[in-house]
Amino acid sequence: MVTNVGMLGYGTVGAGVAWIMFGQGELLSQKVGHPLRLVKAVVRDLAAKRDNPPPLGFLTDDPLEVVGNPDIQVVVEVMGGIEPARSLILRALESGQHVVTANKALLATHGRELFDTAAAHGRELNFEAAAAGAIPVIRTLKEGLAANRIRSVFGILNGTTNYILDLMTKDRTHSVPYEAHLKAAQDLGYAEADPTMDVDGTDAAQKLVLLTALAYGTLPTVDDVRPEGITRLEPLDFVFADELGYVIKLLAMANLPKEGGRLEVRLKPTMIPKEHLLAGVPGAMNAVMIRGHAAGDIFLSGAGAGMRPTASAVVGDIIDTAKVGATGHPSAQPSLGWHGIKAEGILPPGESRTRHFLRFTVRDLPGVLSAISGILGRHGISIAQVIQRGSGPEGAPVTLVMLTHTAKEKDVEEALVEASRLDALTAGTRRVTVEDFGDK
Amino acid sequence: MVTNVGMLGYGTVGAGVAWIMFGQGELLSQKVGHPLRLVKAVVRDLAAKRDNPPPLGFLTDDPLEVVGNPDIQVVVEVMGGIEPARSLILRALESGQHVVTANKALLATHGRELFDTAAAHGRELNFEAAAAGAIPVIRTLKEGLAANRIRSVFGILNGTTNYILDLMTKDRTHSVPYEAHLKAAQDLGYAEADPTMDVDGTDAAQKLVLLTALAYGTLPTVDDVRPEGITRLEPLDFVFADELGYVIKLLAMANLPKEGGRLEVRLKPTMIPKEHLLAGVPGAMNAVMIRGHAAGDIFLSGAGAGMRPTASAVVGDIIDTAKVGATGHPSAQPSLGWHGIKAEGILPPGESRTRHFLRFTVRDLPGVLSAISGILGRHGISIAQVIQRGSGPEGAPVTLVMLTHTAKEKDVEEALVEASRLDALTAGTRRVTVEDFGDK
Repeated sequence: MVTNVGMLGYGTVGAGVAWIMFGQGELLSQKVGHPLRLVKAVVRDLAAKRDNPPPLGFLTDDPLEVVGNPDIQVVVEVMGGIEPARSLILRALESGQHVVTANKALLATHGRELFDTAAAHGRELNFEAAAAGAIPVIRTLKEGLAANRIRSVFGILNGTTNYILDLMTKDRTHSVPYEAHLKAAQDLGYAEADPTMDVDGTDAAQKLVLLTALAYGTLPTVDDVRPEGITRLEPLDFVFADELGYVIKLLAMANLPKEGGRLEVRLKPTMIPKEHLLAGVPGAMNAVMIRGHAAGDIFLSGAGAGMRPTASAVVGDIIDTAKVGATGHPSAQPSLGWHGIKAEGILPPGESRTRHFLRFTVRDLPGVLSAISGILGRHGISIAQVIQRGSGPEGAPVTLVMLTHTAKEKDVEEALVEASRLDALTAGTRRVTVEDFGDK
Repeated sequence: MVTNVGMLGYGTVGAGVAWIMFGQGELLSQKVGHPLRLVKAVVRDLAAKRDNPPPLGFLTDDPLEVVGNPDIQVVVEVMGGIEPARSLILRALESGQHVVTANKALLATHGRELFDTAAAHGRELNFEAAAAGAIPVIRTLKEGLAANRIRSVFGILNGTTNYILDLMTKDRTHSVPYEAHLKAAQDLGYAEADPTMDVDGTDAAQKLVLLTALAYGTLPTVDDVRPEGITRLEPLDFVFADELGYVIKLLAMANLPKEGGRLEVRLKPTMIPKEHLLAGVPGAMNAVMIRGHAAGDIFLSGAGAGMRPTASAVVGDIIDTAKVGATGHPSAQPSLGWHGIKAEGILPPGESRTRHFLRFTVRDLPGVLSAISGILGRHGISIAQVIQRGSGPEGAPVTLVMLTHTAKEKDVEEALVEASRLDALTAGTRRVTVEDFGDK
């Protein structure tokens, strides 16, 4: 027997897959136990100039040379986008081919349809590269932690934003605005020319949707996650985070402390303790922490993107798929809801309970502190710590920072609306979620 | 079909396995795709008092009720020790049973025999829990990174020593000796009453042997690793490590930068950069970093020991084994030499090239610095940084610290022997390996 692999797309990731499979064909075949060959890739434009030119005859512009071709057992989708990727994957599964995809946007929006189709036809649909690049998080959730009830899954799922936040944390002048750091990241190739999907949180939210689906069987939408990006953070937020013992990360979290309760999913800039392993995740790295009832906390980190790391995960999936295909016993395991844990729907975002960092800009007048803390108190929010910074003539604007005890997000939001009516506030108030990971 | 599991041993880990399997039988059977049952455990003394009393009739003192019993498909060895564990595992494999073991001491000493027997009979021999507890490092090496040439595997493989080193790092008085920290760890249950195997490095070296075997196909002995424990470290070493930007960890490393070269394996207290992810591994946690040619650096961390984390890894293996058993197609994959990478034997320990931390205690006399640096220079060792600390009357003892550039370990050792003959040295010289992970 032999496993022939056909690819949809030959961009950066596709070229990386070819680099690994052409470079190590012999060894990979040994691991699979039979010949494993990458035979064909479909591209839109055969004439396009390519940085990594493939062997003659390897490319085609006809998807049907791969999809539905009975000589090809595994279809690898690395073209991206929703259509025609969705239709081609459905057709491949329906015609009995196994599929490996790195397409998080597609799975996050049409995952249910695709996984149901795979299950109906007893085919594999593997997607390790879609969740966190080279980090084996899907595998760990499905296999390594198979014995566990998953309490929560959280981490850093976007390299571009982690790179920028790292720059802003390390900028000891505390004066360089977000836009300048973004520009630096773009110049160094850590951010795209159009970085919207990264900096507004969409990319990380799509990955969080996939991890949530796998851990809890619930496929939330990106809207359920209500992603909040990093564009509104200011240097001053990093100054006070540091002073309070925190680091700001774009934290993705799915959390179900009690089975039968509601599932919390969120993606937003979050202050986390400096000594936490996640705080030390540098540059464009990604990281995921999984809390299991037996294993405790398992932390995984590595490159979340890039040609070779992503291709490494895709080829890992190809090898697994070829091995399972060879037994003639498809795993027939649901890809979603793997852990059989039931959640009673999604927790509305305002119901999340965490500590909060509040940064007010107020006129330095008698009674301001009392007015603000009075409003917070009436909303049931108690204050753990206060810092007042800046001094000048009475009435000049100063910064007032408060760290609350655990409080419901919507209570805090309501209190801030009420506080915004105070004459003493001279600018909008910043709120950043604080996560201590204590009883998660 | 059904998978019945029998266990050899019912100590801490065995009770943990039972806790998971009795507690979640239904769910685990779903994951396997057929009923999965833990039916029997063998103990030496049926009458012994047990903290976690099992169901009536679950225990037996006859190993043959499990080993060779045709109704039991998977044998789980959690009894520890070399014999009778070795003979029972061999007999189980020979009679067609799959085996899961958490016994690192056994695999590190008799691994070749056991893996060869498993391969000869087409049986699975899984051992995730033996390498790094709940951390899915075996799985990641074999599956997640299947597409990679492994450049190096390194990390923190012993929780007791990491706990003590963490205490010594955080002790800002820099006055509490090693013995007192060990005592504290014992009082809190982080170190055994007899901690020898932990603090002398044997336990971590056994795990390193297993990771090396998996990554490189070479099964070194613990002697090849020449483990060096943590007992000789002094508070002053931590003071200077901190000052130079390092943290001291008991670092295990297997390194093959160039295929066809010789494999470097070592286990010793090592200064690593503060900002490295490994430096932040707290308390009794373990961590492993794997460097792949495509994936880059993958970092895994979690509990390396303890009843539930170890049991989590054992049950993960049981589930995998039951699934593979069900297909009737044993994986027939070599457990050793997974990556087909060839090394030309083991690098003799003295040939390792790293930077070195040297701490001399000398009489504060003119010419001492020049004499020592002269000796180092004649051995081809160049000095990157010097710190002299302490002052008193001329001739009083002071501490002289040097950080070298990259140098061969044996050259440094020879230089230190020569330097020890200087009259000005008033105490033994301390050397600690420094690892910057730069070009590994």
